[in-house]
Amino acid sequence: MDGPLIPGLEQIGFGGDYNPDGWPEHVLKEDMELMRRAGVNLVTVGVFSWYAIEPRAGTYDFAWLDATIERLDKAGVGVCLATPTAGPPAWFWRANPDARVLDRQGHTLGTAARGIGCPSSATYRDAAARVASALAERYGEHPAVKLWHVHNEYGVPVFDCYCATSAAAFRTWLRARYGTVAALNRAWGTVFWGQRYSDWAEIEPPVRAATAANPTHQLDYQRFSNDELLDCYRAERDAIRAHSSRPVTTNLMTTNRQTPDYWAWAPEMDLIANDHYLTAEREDAHVDLALSADLTRSYAQGRPWVLMEHSTSAVNWQPRNLAKAPGELRRNSLQHVARGADATLFFQFRAHPFGAEKFHSAMVPQAGPDTRVFREVSELGADLALLRGVLGSRVRAEVAILWDPPSFWAQDLEWRPSVDLDHRAQIEAHYRALWDRNVTVAFAHPAASLDGYRLVIAPASYLLSAAAASNLSRYVSEGGNLLVSYFSGIVNECEHMPDGPMPGQLREVLGLTVEEFLPLRAGQLVRLGGGGLGSRWAEHVELGAATCLDTFADGPASGRPAVAVHAFGSGRAWYLATSPDAATLAGLLASVLATSGVSADVEAGEGLEHVVRRGDGQDFHFWINHSGVDREVGAVGRELLSGTPVAGSITVPAGDVRIVSTVAAG
Amino acid sequence: MDGPLIPGLEQIGFGGDYNPDGWPEHVLKEDMELMRRAGVNLVTVGVFSWYAIEPRAGTYDFAWLDATIERLDKAGVGVCLATPTAGPPAWFWRANPDARVLDRQGHTLGTAARGIGCPSSATYRDAAARVASALAERYGEHPAVKLWHVHNEYGVPVFDCYCATSAAAFRTWLRARYGTVAALNRAWGTVFWGQRYSDWAEIEPPVRAATAANPTHQLDYQRFSNDELLDCYRAERDAIRAHSSRPVTTNLMTTNRQTPDYWAWAPEMDLIANDHYLTAEREDAHVDLALSADLTRSYAQGRPWVLMEHSTSAVNWQPRNLAKAPGELRRNSLQHVARGADATLFFQFRAHPFGAEKFHSAMVPQAGPDTRVFREVSELGADLALLRGVLGSRVRAEVAILWDPPSFWAQDLEWRPSVDLDHRAQIEAHYRALWDRNVTVAFAHPAASLDGYRLVIAPASYLLSAAAASNLSRYVSEGGNLLVSYFSGIVNECEHMPDGPMPGQLREVLGLTVEEFLPLRAGQLVRLGGGGLGSRWAEHVELGAATCLDTFADGPASGRPAVAVHAFGSGRAWYLATSPDAATLAGLLASVLATSGVSADVEAGEGLEHVVRRGDGQDFHFWINHSGVDREVGAVGRELLSGTPVAGSITVPAGDVRIVSTVAAG
Amino acid sequence: MDGPLIPGLEQIGFGGDYNPDGWPEHVLKEDMELMRRAGVNLVTVGVFSWYAIEPRAGTYDFAWLDATIERLDKAGVGVCLATPTAGPPAWFWRANPDARVLDRQGHTLGTAARGIGCPSSATYRDAAARVASALAERYGEHPAVKLWHVHNEYGVPVFDCYCATSAAAFRTWLRARYGTVAALNRAWGTVFWGQRYSDWAEIEPPVRAATAANPTHQLDYQRFSNDELLDCYRAERDAIRAHSSRPVTTNLMTTNRQTPDYWAWAPEMDLIANDHYLTAEREDAHVDLALSADLTRSYAQGRPWVLMEHSTSAVNWQPRNLAKAPGELRRNSLQHVARGADATLFFQFRAHPFGAEKFHSAMVPQAGPDTRVFREVSELGADLALLRGVLGSRVRAEVAILWDPPSFWAQDLEWRPSVDLDHRAQIEAHYRALWDRNVTVAFAHPAASLDGYRLVIAPASYLLSAAAASNLSRYVSEGGNLLVSYFSGIVNECEHMPDGPMPGQLREVLGLTVEEFLPLRAGQLVRLGGGGLGSRWAEHVELGAATCLDTFADGPASGRPAVAVHAFGSGRAWYLATSPDAATLAGLLASVLATSGVSADVEAGEGLEHVVRRGDGQDFHFWINHSGVDREVGAVGRELLSGTPVAGSITVPAGDVRIVSTVAAG
Repeated sequence: MDGPLIPGLEQIGFGGDYNPDGWPEHVLKEDMELMRRAGVNLVTVGVFSWYAIEPRAGTYDFAWLDATIERLDKAGVGVCLATPTAGPPAWFWRANPDARVLDRQGHTLGTAARGIGCPSSATYRDAAARVASALAERYGEHPAVKLWHVHNEYGVPVFDCYCATSAAAFRTWLRARYGTVAALNRAWGTVFWGQRYSDWAEIEPPVRAATAANPTHQLDYQRFSNDELLDCYRAERDAIRAHSSRPVTTNLMTTNRQTPDYWAWAPEMDLIANDHYLTAEREDAHVDLALSADLTRSYAQGRPWVLMEHSTSAVNWQPRNLAKAPGELRRNSLQHVARGADATLFFQFRAHPFGAEKFHSAMVPQAGPDTRVFREVSELGADLALLRGVLGSRVRAEVAILWDPPSFWAQDLEWRPSVDLDHRAQIEAHYRALWDRNVTVAFAHPAASLDGYRLVIAPASYLLSAAAASNLSRYVSEGGNLLVSYFSGIVNECEHMPDGPMPGQLREVLGLTVEEFLPLRAGQLVRLGGGGLGSRWAEHVELGAATCLDTFADGPASGRPAVAVHAFGSGRAWYLATSPDAATLAGLLASVLATSGVSADVEAGEGLEHVVRRGDGQDFHFWINHSGVDREVGAVGRELLSGTPVAGSITVPAGDVRIVSTVAAG
Repeated sequence: MDGPLIPGLEQIGFGGDYNPDGWPEHVLKEDMELMRRAGVNLVTVGVFSWYAIEPRAGTYDFAWLDATIERLDKAGVGVCLATPTAGPPAWFWRANPDARVLDRQGHTLGTAARGIGCPSSATYRDAAARVASALAERYGEHPAVKLWHVHNEYGVPVFDCYCATSAAAFRTWLRARYGTVAALNRAWGTVFWGQRYSDWAEIEPPVRAATAANPTHQLDYQRFSNDELLDCYRAERDAIRAHSSRPVTTNLMTTNRQTPDYWAWAPEMDLIANDHYLTAEREDAHVDLALSADLTRSYAQGRPWVLMEHSTSAVNWQPRNLAKAPGELRRNSLQHVARGADATLFFQFRAHPFGAEKFHSAMVPQAGPDTRVFREVSELGADLALLRGVLGSRVRAEVAILWDPPSFWAQDLEWRPSVDLDHRAQIEAHYRALWDRNVTVAFAHPAASLDGYRLVIAPASYLLSAAAASNLSRYVSEGGNLLVSYFSGIVNECEHMPDGPMPGQLREVLGLTVEEFLPLRAGQLVRLGGGGLGSRWAEHVELGAATCLDTFADGPASGRPAVAVHAFGSGRAWYLATSPDAATLAGLLASVLATSGVSADVEAGEGLEHVVRRGDGQDFHFWINHSGVDREVGAVGRELLSGTPVAGSITVPAGDVRIVSTVAAG
Repeated sequence: MDGPLIPGLEQIGFGGDYNPDGWPEHVLKEDMELMRRAGVNLVTVGVFSWYAIEPRAGTYDFAWLDATIERLDKAGVGVCLATPTAGPPAWFWRANPDARVLDRQGHTLGTAARGIGCPSSATYRDAAARVASALAERYGEHPAVKLWHVHNEYGVPVFDCYCATSAAAFRTWLRARYGTVAALNRAWGTVFWGQRYSDWAEIEPPVRAATAANPTHQLDYQRFSNDELLDCYRAERDAIRAHSSRPVTTNLMTTNRQTPDYWAWAPEMDLIANDHYLTAEREDAHVDLALSADLTRSYAQGRPWVLMEHSTSAVNWQPRNLAKAPGELRRNSLQHVARGADATLFFQFRAHPFGAEKFHSAMVPQAGPDTRVFREVSELGADLALLRGVLGSRVRAEVAILWDPPSFWAQDLEWRPSVDLDHRAQIEAHYRALWDRNVTVAFAHPAASLDGYRLVIAPASYLLSAAAASNLSRYVSEGGNLLVSYFSGIVNECEHMPDGPMPGQLREVLGLTVEEFLPLRAGQLVRLGGGGLGSRWAEHVELGAATCLDTFADGPASGRPAVAVHAFGSGRAWYLATSPDAATLAGLLASVLATSGVSADVEAGEGLEHVVRRGDGQDFHFWINHSGVDREVGAVGRELLSGTPVAGSITVPAGDVRIVSTVAAG
């Protein structure tokens, strides 16, 4: 049981982004009333308000923000105060054209949207730190201010810049990383294609070339870009800390297709905050939500965290922005809480009726408060108020899935053995199979301690550092269970394949080698001897000390091992050499989980999600019924939303949620 | 009955673009003979001849053009004289590199093709006006010259430019539109994403940014670009008028996917001219042709108009340039005449055997005059000569469909609720249902007088100005019938959603509100209670005073209204909340037409088009049989193409056309 | 029987690209041992080693290369010494930013990959010639050096550059081609769209414009780019010849989608070398291989040639890099030998475990020599050692297919009658039908002598010069048999259509004209009267003296000729007006081959390839069984791989190869 995640907030945080600039007084007044009705206790203010508080360079005007914070404070609503640095004002762009972002094609990006300046630009960084400092100086100890929200979604919509300033900063970064040009040449393998450098000044950002650029060069540019963004964050955070004792965070987007390396960011943040949006057309969007929440909690080292943004209904930037069905926003929010969120906020409290996001949903829709959405928001607020006891409790996981953004960056470079190698799809397939069995998952960096896990899964660990590979070996040899899928352990941190057969970093622990990749044709299926089906990938596995569990029955690897297991030290390592269909993977995982001693919970029925948060002496069982059928589950304790005792079993109606507090099991 | 559309042309205009530069004498001589055989009486000369008449800056050479006009005059062929400003000569581009177009990505466009200079460039505009003036001075009163054709297809292939000259002109345009930066900030909603401006100089064209630019900013850039093009036209027109009494026009492309706002152009033109090309692979290309003709006639306020370009057979720029089938060019031409064209011209009389368009068809094909195409052209010429009586007669429509290019510009910006929101598809679906019933349609600007129409349809009026919305309300309250489809009346001219529930501008007249959009998945179908089917879209309608006519039977809006009607003042307003399939829409329209008192003509049979032009005391009934089956229709009068009397009925053979002159009905 | 292709190499050349830079000593030692085991006798050294031998501008360091060549020489392995000019070193790019390539969009390409400098840059060319000269001076007469390999794959990844240097060079090239601006205006047809030039300085490269640029302008830019690349090659070759007597070549990529005009390159090369890679997902990749080999042999005027690169298994740059199946690398290699290769080399001997191509296969895989791939490589080496007698023997072809890269460049420009006009698909369809009948094919330039062929096929000769058209007519009139497919003979070398009906250049020899193209809809099929099926294309053929052999039974050309034949002089010319399906084409070709007196070999069965190389007094019959079924064929002689006599027949096992030496037939 942790102390309060956000000091001074004694309940589950509930609210959203609040942008009251430009609204007439009567609306502002109604806002306070609606916040009260909805049980809002925390709102994010100021995300894009740079122009409002610094209308001219160096001239601050806090009148509007003073009034806003005062109004919220009077209404008893806490403030998550944002620095506005994801939206430099027009005067900034005009005065500092060199701070604009140059993309990889050589286009200077326009400024009529939102977005960071060149992350390496001292002009941008200094201006950002100054405005953060001014805010902190004024509001750092204001009683309404509970939390700092630096910038917005670092890396979106700009992750990297290729301007001359960035090029110079990249060279500086490389010097620090490699010390000598010779070391860089070794790390980048510049002997290939004759790319050897003799002077730092010869090195450029990997702008679009006639063909594939050196992959280590590209990977280092992503590392550099990540570090530059993180430096931007640090500069603002430090400016705030000089004036404020409140926790500082920034809103991550943990499941974006390309993200910064949040493992490096998390230690710099006082708490972890995440933005999550459903992919509305996905039928399994709630499983992706669970993954996002588990990943966020993992970045938080298991501690509670803040859901900084999600949506009450449709977003506006997907191809087809499906609205949420009745009950869905409540299930979504409580899913996040079940998986460790101690605050669930929406983008946004009330939408502006103009601008690029006017079709994004809000807590108060365009149609006003007498709407399904606002009613559901209010009901949710009432529910959350009943969950104060959950605050600070923790979710435990016996299974870890490896997750490493730099490995994804590396794998996503061009010229891989197959375009069907998709790390996210591989991870999601394994995650889904575990979710279906109500096995709660943590995500782990491959070099982090894995001691607490009964089973570790590496569905897609293309790049493994030597340290990470040793870590996995040690984990297994000391009794751990490891399931590795194909195309893992292929390259080291320099993006080099270790000497000898693949998977160089893992062949000892797996007790086998891969002689050759045998990617499949588009849509091609291969049968396995055990009756399963694979697609996308096969390979030529040569068993060492490992034992074959299943074979390819046809296709290019016909007759060769498809699944193997290796007793290594006190543990076991499984290997999976194809992309199995859902049933095949479920069967394999059932066996792996059983062998690993992981308990699964499948009795409740399909679509009934079950997660446990553990507090001091009590467990909070969350049952979330995503199906259209009522489900009955066994439980003894008290149902928190209704306040009724549960003696033996409880029905979770279709689409509904039940939360039962019980005496802690362990 | 109007006076002659083109003074001095006493017949239906017939001919094409004529580019005789570069041909040997014997071909020029043959041209005159072939024009005679085909009955050509009007050709467009000089569209891309700038280099020929101004071979060096300021030096004119009219020898070639003198000879050409003389030759045509002697042959009794009228001249539609073009200004050549859509193809500045090579010397111009070399001397004026700053007049080149910079695209939205930041690429300067090359000059080895055709295309306007930067529309805001004074250098380009002055050069264009000078060459127009020189032409008018020399040929303005030449007896052969019947009509002026300014430029070519404004907006194609260049609609907008993003260079520094354009940026400065945009700021000037904004000052004129908004007066103050504060007013601009309000109109653009720059409070969103912190985009507020404090100085005109901060404002740039909306070049490609990292994400979606401010939509009002983008919309205003399209308005600005439209106005700049229109100013280019006006400058040339005025230069011509100083020396010539002949009518001045420019060839529109009314049904291009993106067009200028031709409602603003039409009053500046002495007559309306249009270019229309079939989308060759569309099976219903002739329905699209009818729409184009009706729209062109509507821009002409119902007066006759000129079809400046269409093709005798294949074009060259579509993916698969299907040739026209035998008889098709005649049906196409007479369809245009039926719908108000008093001249039908082709691009082109004879094709050059080189250059970018050598595979475009012509009146005289590459294979020469002894060809199907030239024979059909000649037969058409003979037919048209029999239609002199039709000249000046008018087509009447009882139904109007709303059409507003700026609304389309706005809707086509990014981040709409669904990519399946397609204004053109919506309009075409309604048009097709009316065409199938031989209901003749006019297109109307939403703020224009609608008094003459029994029914007004708004299939896709996303943006409605306050004036337009009032206009629609007044129309209904005074007894009109209005059918509105979903995603109409959503934003005002600033691209803001009015306060309160959607559709803000129309909720009173419709007697309902839309609480939430419920876009459908790709390919998803929803059933309606009345047995129909919808796709793409559903929404949460809350009825006010309106009456529900049909409901959603499944899908996200299950149980809610899908079709409603509202008695408002002396009229009625229907609302349609999904995209119905063809049969469902036909059923709805049958009922709406009947209620509105609109007469339909469905007895003749599928594919038989029937349109009436009304002259002084007589009606001209055009029957065009697009089907493969002979059709018999009732008629009394005289068939004009055969000169035979019709007493009671007439057969329209498959693929053929009959035009019967009768005593006027009304 | 030719003399040795590579003097000093007395066996079929066997080996691969060898890039030993950066490997430790023990690997280099193992390399020599593995080369011995595999029977390697020729390796390519230095392709990307510019940085190694000229580490600073003007400073050479040959230590590494000396050692490498010495080591190979001691091991008895010949050296194909490459100039490294496809990979300028980093110092070069830094010192010479103006030598970078500017693409057609206006982007300067980055240098962190491989690629040529601007081909027109004197800076680049001089630097390249200097390094070639330095290499030749040092190694030109080294006994180990057998062959020079200039640059690498000219045209890949950069074919054209649009920088100011290129623009100036283009103007120079145009002056030389046309002499006067007036002549250029005529050739380019600048009268169209008013593009006439009055000064050379007005002419620019055809950078991206708002719409289609002048096609002759574009075509000339490709000719110019080809010539500039060829000049780069000549400069290096001449620098080498000044110091070396060894043959000089460069590795072509004959079947790339876009290639230089290798007919112009071949006479500049001492021998022809080719790179060929399977399109791994194509089921008929081995037929494409045969086409590539036949084309390469044709560029070599029928003489033996060198396969400079192919792969032992997967490549790394295709969407799905399927590995080769067991036996496939041997069949591929022996297919090349069967079709005239006297050397078959792989990219690459051993792969670097880093860089952009680490997933490309090699003779020694990442997994080392104890692998299927290295075993198959070694078996192949042993096989090839048995084929010394084949060296210098020649393949004969009775059928020629026309092939002309500039025609392909022209056809691939925008705005053709149909996007389904695909010259490669047309050629491959005809080639496949001949391959299925074991009819060996040569490829011929349309203006080259065709005297030796019984049948010439023009499946896709869109552009034909006047000389080429005369050549075809003369060939037929003197007794040849010519089969022409649609969209051939349409334009001349200026990309102009000749006067009169199409196909202007071929209508006399074909005895027919094409009045109009009638392209089909996407996926549309048309039936032929003879029972066949066509797709993509139909046309309106008017017979002159030709005789109709088959008609269109439906579709837009219904009732008109689809296949015709014309007796012309002593020969015959067939015409095919649609794209027939495989069975229809096979039927037509069976008849055309029989009439032309071409012998086919279809008895062996599907998938059994049969090619004959003829030496002095003996024929070498290669049977390559691509099927899964053993095949028996008639033969008398000696099987070379097993050394066993063959008396009457021999079985070619599934997937296997048999090579029988017999007494020459002719």
